[in-house]
Amino acid sequence: METRRVYFDNNATTPLHPEVKRVMADAMETFGNPSSLHAYGREARALVEEARKKVAAFIGAEPEEIMFVGSGSEGNNTVLSIVTCQGRPCSIGSFGPRNLVTTKIEHPCILEASKCLAERGFGVTFVDVDSDGKVDLDRLEDAINDRTALVSVMMANNEIGTVQDIKTIARICHDKGALFHTDAVQAVGKVRLDVKELDVDFLTLSGHKIYAPKGIGAVYVRKGAPFCPFIRGGHQERGRRAGTENTIGIAALGKAVELRDLEMDAEGERLRAMKERLKEGIAAAIPDVHFVGHPTDCLAGTLNVSFEGAEGEAILLYLDLAGIAVSTGSACASGSLDPSHVILATGLSPECAHGSIRISMGRENTMEDVDYFLDVLPGVISRIRKMSSAYAGRK
Amino acid sequence: METRRVYFDNNATTPLHPEVKRVMADAMETFGNPSSLHAYGREARALVEEARKKVAAFIGAEPEEIMFVGSGSEGNNTVLSIVTCQGRPCSIGSFGPRNLVTTKIEHPCILEASKCLAERGFGVTFVDVDSDGKVDLDRLEDAINDRTALVSVMMANNEIGTVQDIKTIARICHDKGALFHTDAVQAVGKVRLDVKELDVDFLTLSGHKIYAPKGIGAVYVRKGAPFCPFIRGGHQERGRRAGTENTIGIAALGKAVELRDLEMDAEGERLRAMKERLKEGIAAAIPDVHFVGHPTDCLAGTLNVSFEGAEGEAILLYLDLAGIAVSTGSACASGSLDPSHVILATGLSPECAHGSIRISMGRENTMEDVDYFLDVLPGVISRIRKMSSAYAGRK
Repeated sequence: METRRVYFDNNATTPLHPEVKRVMADAMETFGNPSSLHAYGREARALVEEARKKVAAFIGAEPEEIMFVGSGSEGNNTVLSIVTCQGRPCSIGSFGPRNLVTTKIEHPCILEASKCLAERGFGVTFVDVDSDGKVDLDRLEDAINDRTALVSVMMANNEIGTVQDIKTIARICHDKGALFHTDAVQAVGKVRLDVKELDVDFLTLSGHKIYAPKGIGAVYVRKGAPFCPFIRGGHQERGRRAGTENTIGIAALGKAVELRDLEMDAEGERLRAMKERLKEGIAAAIPDVHFVGHPTDCLAGTLNVSFEGAEGEAILLYLDLAGIAVSTGSACASGSLDPSHVILATGLSPECAHGSIRISMGRENTMEDVDYFLDVLPGVISRIRKMSSAYAGRK
Repeated sequence: METRRVYFDNNATTPLHPEVKRVMADAMETFGNPSSLHAYGREARALVEEARKKVAAFIGAEPEEIMFVGSGSEGNNTVLSIVTCQGRPCSIGSFGPRNLVTTKIEHPCILEASKCLAERGFGVTFVDVDSDGKVDLDRLEDAINDRTALVSVMMANNEIGTVQDIKTIARICHDKGALFHTDAVQAVGKVRLDVKELDVDFLTLSGHKIYAPKGIGAVYVRKGAPFCPFIRGGHQERGRRAGTENTIGIAALGKAVELRDLEMDAEGERLRAMKERLKEGIAAAIPDVHFVGHPTDCLAGTLNVSFEGAEGEAILLYLDLAGIAVSTGSACASGSLDPSHVILATGLSPECAHGSIRISMGRENTMEDVDYFLDVLPGVISRIRKMSSAYAGRK
């Protein structure tokens, strides 16, 4: 009997949507350089601009406010780097204040880029979150002062799924004269959003979290917002990002958001029901579990759960043997032996943080996947706990 | 009758190799995140590491010396940015001298990144080239002093095809204690090279110039060379470049270099013969032409030619009407009304620089393409010259 395979790691990356694959196969034939003036170039340019319109429409932006990049990490690094702009020959010579405010639960790319800025002499503040992973709005407001250039707060957390009130956060920032960026890599395509309604200045999104390929992302740059290129060179993306456009990836991203628009609402309902069954099933079958993340303001398909007396990595490996893929923390931090910075920031103990796994479901998952997972998980946890002298001794 | 289509703009970008397309279609099914520990992740990781070995082998490097990036522009910006490293927590705290030496004929991404460094207070010197586009080695040596951290010289020029003596240049740099980087985006896959024999510290290459897709490139980072990440965040690429790996692009690049190894020598011979016929045909049919670039140390498929009394952009557009794609200067500078900085650096007048086109042939071109081009070109030039009062009046 072949082992069932269940992919519950959609926050790490997603399988390509079949229709996205078709668009990619077509785009392979449109090989021109979009910057070339001849027919081959114009064909490629048309493909890029069509995708730009789709991405813009999906988040309520104008096409010229969309800049394609190579990944969410590049997009986030790009936005944060604008605080270092030296003015000439860029447009933001009078950028003025140069401090950054962000939170303790951001993705590693925001945290590491922020730490690098701190090393370069720019002031950086990391704001706390509460036990559900919600940003403390009072502390955020206190952290912003007249030297703050930019505030960056992720919309939905990749590890625990907590969704922030971005509209309120953006208003707080703007009231205090700071620009606001949101890393919406995990939110776009799962949570309906409109950049104008949220009133954000910058927003990052990524293709491979929404059934498009790895290697493509986009940044929304509000018209009129100060900007400074990160990758310099050619005039591509209105001079904001040099490098020949990843035409296949861009076409794929355009198709992916079009499909998200059609599928995301019904899928959200389905995933919420699956998560409910998961939570009930886990709580009924396994003692000493903690669900991490906000109970309602949370991504529909994301469930982070911590098991006392069981290492997350051991759980992951035993589930893998049963054909089930989950993660501990984020894929971008895998290989690290430190407990998740996100779980720690919610106030859970390092022991509990070590025992957490992330289940992230997506469009291909079914209730049968959930049932199979619930069949397998109790045996895995019990087996691991038996090997854990600390846990066994307690019982 | 359908117009024949001739793509003579392979230095701007290349069509995908049919075998690369097949590899991409296969890679679409391996969707895991290479950082994930479970089976899906391991499958994706294997695909990435197999491609890394192929790229390394093709240029004589070790696999761990290859870092995948999103484009040649990103790779070049990454290498240049190391001169700004602030030390902690990076490994190159004692990097010391912080000046950069490069040349006047580099790709716009090197030039613009260099100008940005200059704006940030780092000393930057742009060394001259001779009338064939060869870097003046005496001036290069004079430009390097004990404050020079890094020297960056492109291996083959994208506009005129001139190939530099990189081995000698690297030795000059090392003798004077500077690190050496070569932008080999136009050289890799056309000129046989071995990074150990050349003794370079860093080398940049790009997929879409060698029949792989846009959006993928690689940087060779010599083991032991100081390095500082540009895109920060996850531990990917040994902590040197954050962002989920573009698995499809990486697999494609691996296949592309494998195919280059098999095809490039015979293709070089073929292209050299085609270029010879092109030069003879143009010189025989059209007066007042100047061939730009080194007569022998030049890419086999690249021919840059300037026509007195004819604007390059007009030539491009008339040829496009006849189904032929060429370029004026580089695609990364298209849309600019300035004459090519490369052609000007060779000492040609701005008028002549304005009248130049770049013909760049590749693996799909045939002698029939050359003959068709030679049938069409004289009429195009003569038509444009008739409209040019300055040229007509002279005759």
